[in-house]
Amino acid sequence: MDISRRLELAMSATIDRAQAGGPGRLAHALNYAVLPGGARIRPTICLSVAMACGDDRPALADAAAVALELIHCASLVHDDLPAFDNADFRRGKPTVHMAFSEPLAVLTGDSLIIAAFDALTHAAPADAMRALSLVRLLAHHTGMPHGICAGQAWESEPEVDLRAYHRSKTAALFVAATQMGAVAAGQEAEPWQELGARIGEAFQVADDLRDALYDAETLGKPAGQDAALARPSAVEELGVQGAIKRLRDILSGAIASIPSCPGEAQLASMVQLYAERMTPVAPVRV
Amino acid sequence: MDISRRLELAMSATIDRAQAGGPGRLAHALNYAVLPGGARIRPTICLSVAMACGDDRPALADAAAVALELIHCASLVHDDLPAFDNADFRRGKPTVHMAFSEPLAVLTGDSLIIAAFDALTHAAPADAMRALSLVRLLAHHTGMPHGICAGQAWESEPEVDLRAYHRSKTAALFVAATQMGAVAAGQEAEPWQELGARIGEAFQVADDLRDALYDAETLGKPAGQDAALARPSAVEELGVQGAIKRLRDILSGAIASIPSCPGEAQLASMVQLYAERMTPVAPVRV
Repeated sequence: MDISRRLELAMSATIDRAQAGGPGRLAHALNYAVLPGGARIRPTICLSVAMACGDDRPALADAAAVALELIHCASLVHDDLPAFDNADFRRGKPTVHMAFSEPLAVLTGDSLIIAAFDALTHAAPADAMRALSLVRLLAHHTGMPHGICAGQAWESEPEVDLRAYHRSKTAALFVAATQMGAVAAGQEAEPWQELGARIGEAFQVADDLRDALYDAETLGKPAGQDAALARPSAVEELGVQGAIKRLRDILSGAIASIPSCPGEAQLASMVQLYAERMTPVAPVRV
Repeated sequence: MDISRRLELAMSATIDRAQAGGPGRLAHALNYAVLPGGARIRPTICLSVAMACGDDRPALADAAAVALELIHCASLVHDDLPAFDNADFRRGKPTVHMAFSEPLAVLTGDSLIIAAFDALTHAAPADAMRALSLVRLLAHHTGMPHGICAGQAWESEPEVDLRAYHRSKTAALFVAATQMGAVAAGQEAEPWQELGARIGEAFQVADDLRDALYDAETLGKPAGQDAALARPSAVEELGVQGAIKRLRDILSGAIASIPSCPGEAQLASMVQLYAERMTPVAPVRV
């Protein structure tokens, strides 16, 4: 089974469990928030690393991947709220608070966060140590003081620590992806930190480039938000060509950092493929 | 060490860990949201049950109690948001979104939820099975389809399932309290379901009575919200005297349901004490 099919099956099973017998509108909103998916890049990295490490507990690797994607979707739902980005559209359709209501959007995010932790408890009754490590990694890279909640909160500070901001806002979930993939397959988390951090950094630069270069229709969300909201951006700092060079350098470093493992070569090809997909081909902002 | 001192120490350690090195305003908001505490009734029940069951892993029982209180505080912060109750005051001081901002209130709730799960992973490296069971119980009673998120979401349904509404909105965290206390001490969760459910039901009736009878100053939050927001209430259904009788009946049932355990008599006394504290003494609404 290919990664994307494997992931969608595991996602559906988790969402089905969260919906069964619950209030209908929130149940519907959970589904709406996670389907159809975006690039599913974090869970794909997680499963790729697990497979590179031997994938001896596939149900646990699936749960880790699903947990990451649920947290990512939760963060999008909350970030889109009127109090944050006030976004009307996401992935080409109305955001959750526009399609349902603001209360249901808050609850959708909360429920997806909780479903992420729950997913990790269903996968491996025989391997509680690994599952508990996954819970801890997910919490570390998601909450305070270093996870994506912290990253979002740096935007509310009078003085922003830019390194901490980028590390937690975007990189944290990529580090979670590589580390959780490794831990699900019985490996140590620490050696996989650098790969995740570099992919995350690359992703942030690519996102800054897309925000600066593409129009809203291509993005499926409002464009030019970094400049409009005066958010820190690699394009503002380095210019477009400088940011593209930075992106290529980071991804070369990512490939070089892959720890020795059975599927090392295949994993390197995957990162290379992402590198090509991430790099914008031409400015199309009109 | 008495329960309340034990709990405050464990709470402080968890909040300190969530704050260290993170963005300052959110770090401050986390503290603001959990201190000074309310009655800390859920974690007190959790620790009381753990002690009645022998409390052979006190660090795990502390973590379970802290996790419950963090989830409860998170739910208050999100419920107070303008999109829900739009409350300006809670526990006699401005709510988190009034004191900080709406974005920081959303992130405070998210971070507290995550910190709750994180707390369970730090307590018992030697007892991963129990810790993982606690993660699962917490998720079950907090998220969808049967936890407090579901309870809140029933208020957004065109047709409310009143049994499911009360069971998930209020009772769920009380069931979590009794079950997590038992599991932290190595017992099965299931026999402790009824005690938690009955205490939760009693608490809901007591809350309805307080909302109907007391003024805002006594409550530390707006009074008469059930009637104003047309929420289901035991007072509306049974009248004041009927609701007081229902409360007493439920608490007798709660005491009768306590499973056989070393500290059974002491636990019964504690529930009796709560019963007396919960029952309103006189109507004081002006």
